[in-house]
Amino acid sequence: MEKRAFGYWFAAATEIVPGTRYHYMLDGNGNVRPDPASRFQPGGVHGPSAVVNPLSFRWTDEWWRGLPLEEMIIYELHVGSATPEGTFRSLIHRLDYLLDLGVNTLELMPVAQFPGSRNWGYDGVYPYAPQNSYGGPEGLKTLVNACHSKGLAVILDVVYNHLGPEGNYLSEFGPYFTDRYHTPWGAAVNFDGSWSDEVRNYFVNNAVYWAEEFHIDGLRLDAVHGTFDFSARHILSEIAESVHSFADKLGRHIYVIAESDLNDARIITPVNGGGYGLDAQWNDDFHHCLHVLLTGERSGYYADFNDSGQLEKAYAEGFVYSGQHSAYRNRRHGNSSKGLPGSRFVVFSQNHDQVGNRALGDRLSVSVTPEKLRLAAAAVILAPFLPLIFMGEEYGEVAPFLYFVSHSDPELVEAVRDGRKKEFASFGWTSEIADPQAEATFLKSKLSPELYRTKGHALLHHYYRELITIRKRELSLSAAGGVECDTYSSAGGRLIALLRSRADEMSICVFNFDECGHKYAAEIPGGEWKLVLDSASPEWGGRIGSAPPSFRVSDRPFEIPVEAMSAVVYSRRIEVF
Amino acid sequence: MEKRAFGYWFAAATEIVPGTRYHYMLDGNGNVRPDPASRFQPGGVHGPSAVVNPLSFRWTDEWWRGLPLEEMIIYELHVGSATPEGTFRSLIHRLDYLLDLGVNTLELMPVAQFPGSRNWGYDGVYPYAPQNSYGGPEGLKTLVNACHSKGLAVILDVVYNHLGPEGNYLSEFGPYFTDRYHTPWGAAVNFDGSWSDEVRNYFVNNAVYWAEEFHIDGLRLDAVHGTFDFSARHILSEIAESVHSFADKLGRHIYVIAESDLNDARIITPVNGGGYGLDAQWNDDFHHCLHVLLTGERSGYYADFNDSGQLEKAYAEGFVYSGQHSAYRNRRHGNSSKGLPGSRFVVFSQNHDQVGNRALGDRLSVSVTPEKLRLAAAAVILAPFLPLIFMGEEYGEVAPFLYFVSHSDPELVEAVRDGRKKEFASFGWTSEIADPQAEATFLKSKLSPELYRTKGHALLHHYYRELITIRKRELSLSAAGGVECDTYSSAGGRLIALLRSRADEMSICVFNFDECGHKYAAEIPGGEWKLVLDSASPEWGGRIGSAPPSFRVSDRPFEIPVEAMSAVVYSRRIEVF
Repeated sequence: MEKRAFGYWFAAATEIVPGTRYHYMLDGNGNVRPDPASRFQPGGVHGPSAVVNPLSFRWTDEWWRGLPLEEMIIYELHVGSATPEGTFRSLIHRLDYLLDLGVNTLELMPVAQFPGSRNWGYDGVYPYAPQNSYGGPEGLKTLVNACHSKGLAVILDVVYNHLGPEGNYLSEFGPYFTDRYHTPWGAAVNFDGSWSDEVRNYFVNNAVYWAEEFHIDGLRLDAVHGTFDFSARHILSEIAESVHSFADKLGRHIYVIAESDLNDARIITPVNGGGYGLDAQWNDDFHHCLHVLLTGERSGYYADFNDSGQLEKAYAEGFVYSGQHSAYRNRRHGNSSKGLPGSRFVVFSQNHDQVGNRALGDRLSVSVTPEKLRLAAAAVILAPFLPLIFMGEEYGEVAPFLYFVSHSDPELVEAVRDGRKKEFASFGWTSEIADPQAEATFLKSKLSPELYRTKGHALLHHYYRELITIRKRELSLSAAGGVECDTYSSAGGRLIALLRSRADEMSICVFNFDECGHKYAAEIPGGEWKLVLDSASPEWGGRIGSAPPSFRVSDRPFEIPVEAMSAVVYSRRIEVF
Repeated sequence: MEKRAFGYWFAAATEIVPGTRYHYMLDGNGNVRPDPASRFQPGGVHGPSAVVNPLSFRWTDEWWRGLPLEEMIIYELHVGSATPEGTFRSLIHRLDYLLDLGVNTLELMPVAQFPGSRNWGYDGVYPYAPQNSYGGPEGLKTLVNACHSKGLAVILDVVYNHLGPEGNYLSEFGPYFTDRYHTPWGAAVNFDGSWSDEVRNYFVNNAVYWAEEFHIDGLRLDAVHGTFDFSARHILSEIAESVHSFADKLGRHIYVIAESDLNDARIITPVNGGGYGLDAQWNDDFHHCLHVLLTGERSGYYADFNDSGQLEKAYAEGFVYSGQHSAYRNRRHGNSSKGLPGSRFVVFSQNHDQVGNRALGDRLSVSVTPEKLRLAAAAVILAPFLPLIFMGEEYGEVAPFLYFVSHSDPELVEAVRDGRKKEFASFGWTSEIADPQAEATFLKSKLSPELYRTKGHALLHHYYRELITIRKRELSLSAAGGVECDTYSSAGGRLIALLRSRADEMSICVFNFDECGHKYAAEIPGGEWKLVLDSASPEWGGRIGSAPPSFRVSDRPFEIPVEAMSAVVYSRRIEVF
């Protein structure tokens, strides 16, 4: 190969057909390594790379422009465990089910080639190569094309803060890593040191690559608190700008969404306001408030959360920790996200981390009552944010989502086992945990394909469908620009009301996280209010459902009855004179 | 002592008189340590702390409000080597000399207690204790009070990115340091980890302490590229806000100025624009361009600079590297500071680092011609920025400014010697360097008290006085708000013209960094222009001085003759009809 500037090497080869295997020899000793920018690793992380023709796939989605951010209703899934086959193609058969549910955006946990065939995806080491056991690049393109044909957008989870330990040969190619910063997951990526420009390009180009060659509609950047960059241009900003430029050029909607533990509003503040210009971020604070209200758990990071109005603050402002002292972190945490649009936040009552990083990988469905499941669903799906549902949540899946790997290095396997034990110890969880390396652990985590049709599960499934229908139908319940969300709370913060309006519609959602029924004294405009939802109604398996089908506000405050652990929603038209 | 929240301990003692020695016993084994927040270390870094009454000093500067930032003309000095005695009090006798020179702001290199009696100050370990050998807290207060009585402001250099190695017992007291980040100077300060709030307070309070108890008018934060903080509220922003709040409360001007190697305009961008809100920063790019134009040096970081218009960009925008690839750093560097006011940048042709971090500690005065010295002085003092003069520069001091320490730990001394050698090797400097630990090295670096009165030196000294007078007199040459600076260059970038106007005045400065004389074809408004300065005039020791005393622009472009390596300045009144 011919050495070029900035550490690149070049060779031109002719008569190469797609599928041709290749690798690089970095020294004269015959040691060969896969291509760091490999598009396909048919034999896994240690085998040769395969040539892919990026132009050969027959896309049929030329018309597709993506979805407006504020319309997204996200369904997070893990390709390997979402279907019995665990492949991209097998997911296509699930799309009608998802369309029927009403979600419009699939979010795939990371698919970059990882060691073996079982992994959450955060051990990926070939950021450009869709996992061989999932079906490789052809499989992913087929899935995305099928999604678009049904009007579904696809978000991909990508990992730019580290690369997995096994099969990671990058440091033999160049200064991809640095020892200036430490991450909990492995060597930090060199985003700001010597020769960092080309390392940055490797990841920035990767972000655009998914949009360009796979027609992906958005990226979820894993744990951006691990992307250490002290340079004058933050790598997150560069990624967002590059993706947005590409999207603008094509007239498509493509989003960059962060997972962030920083509670730093700069990440989702526009560039002209001094921010990094990402489109949205996950709001873990919202989850933690909700989880504590539902379960009373107070171990680990839940120690920072309680029932005294934090969830109301999350609805009103986004971050709960906006500079307050955090007992879990032993320091002040966060800045204020007040004033940012609701569409800057993704919210959820469950996700792969919040379920899977529990010792037993247990879902809410096996630990709380159906009443609480319905309340949690309403609190998320009717929030002025972007709701995210974790696969199976919508019918109360009972299978756990456990942590699983299939490494080939025994030392690494031991290290993973030890690491999990230590993590759980910090939550005070000491119960026997499933062996991450065992295939059984993976198999236990697979969704139960037909469970949603069975009795109680079917009721919950219908309820989720109804919530999504309501969110889409009632203008005032979307996360669209111009949402106004006034929040109120009583019962010591356990009774929360959101008053929202948009165009000529107005709604009030009352969430009662108290074990007692309450009457919410509503300071709401006069007029005829109609019941939109009562989660305690027998229709959904509730016992009573005492919310009146409609009421007229003349004597204020009007008192809305709300059962214990339930949600009611009313809406009205605003008379325009 | 009684344990209180957040790691604080409390004890009340009565009948303590100022000067009482004390220390803390951290374990039961009789090991004692000085107070990390000691106000005075009379016996040095290892000895006991002494009680200081912060209210006993008789200040006479109640009327003092400080100076507007844009009026500052800064004189940087090292207390130990600026006078034969090397004390705060002995400096008081130099104030009339400085007033006569025309500068209005003293910038003291760091004075926090360091080991021994000879040190630049960056090895300080008691951030609250003015150096004992300089005269301690009483001495510093006496100096500041005297400065204020003469209308001089005082800026203090403070080091918040690390603490010196010798006498540093802080980690025995609490989690002051972190191993998440690495600095070249020692353990990084824990600004964003567990228990970091009180570590932050330690430094934030220190910044306010200097303003409150010592009436300091500004802080120069050493090497902020070493203050690693990934939290949602950057420590620099918190320091600036705290100092500014204190200043506002008292109606005083107090500034926070960074030394920064980041070329990141966020540091000096206001908070409402998404920045950290510091008042100014040193602009090393400006220095490096100027140095390369004067000396032709291209080793070390000078490799990034040349004579093709970079200095013009520095005048026009501030940073020269605003995102371009840097060959020295092997990466892109910086973002754009275009549009920020000139008063956000401190500029210099020499400073303690740029002189002292040369193998021989040699000043420009011993390596370039008097013509170049005069040109450099004009380029700095007439710049639309805040000029800084390094002590002795104004009369062409010939003593070097060498690196000196007086550690007591032999291993540390060896490490310092080795470190210096390695640093110089990166510049290709292999000559024998002075031993940092030797007293002779320190003594060689002392200023020569009466040199400014001797022949050639006196000429240069008068010239500096004249430049400062011109800067103060000509409105259009200040760094005040509303400066407009249009830049032009020719002779391949070596001939630079600044056209500036303010109120009804207009000026043109032409700096010729070419070895040949030139005529600058000035596209300037018509009218009567008067000569303000010709650095090539025999008055300053020049050989010719061919610039006409005035000219009238009618036929444009008018050609202004400029000798080789010299500066000419003309000004005119704008006729108001």
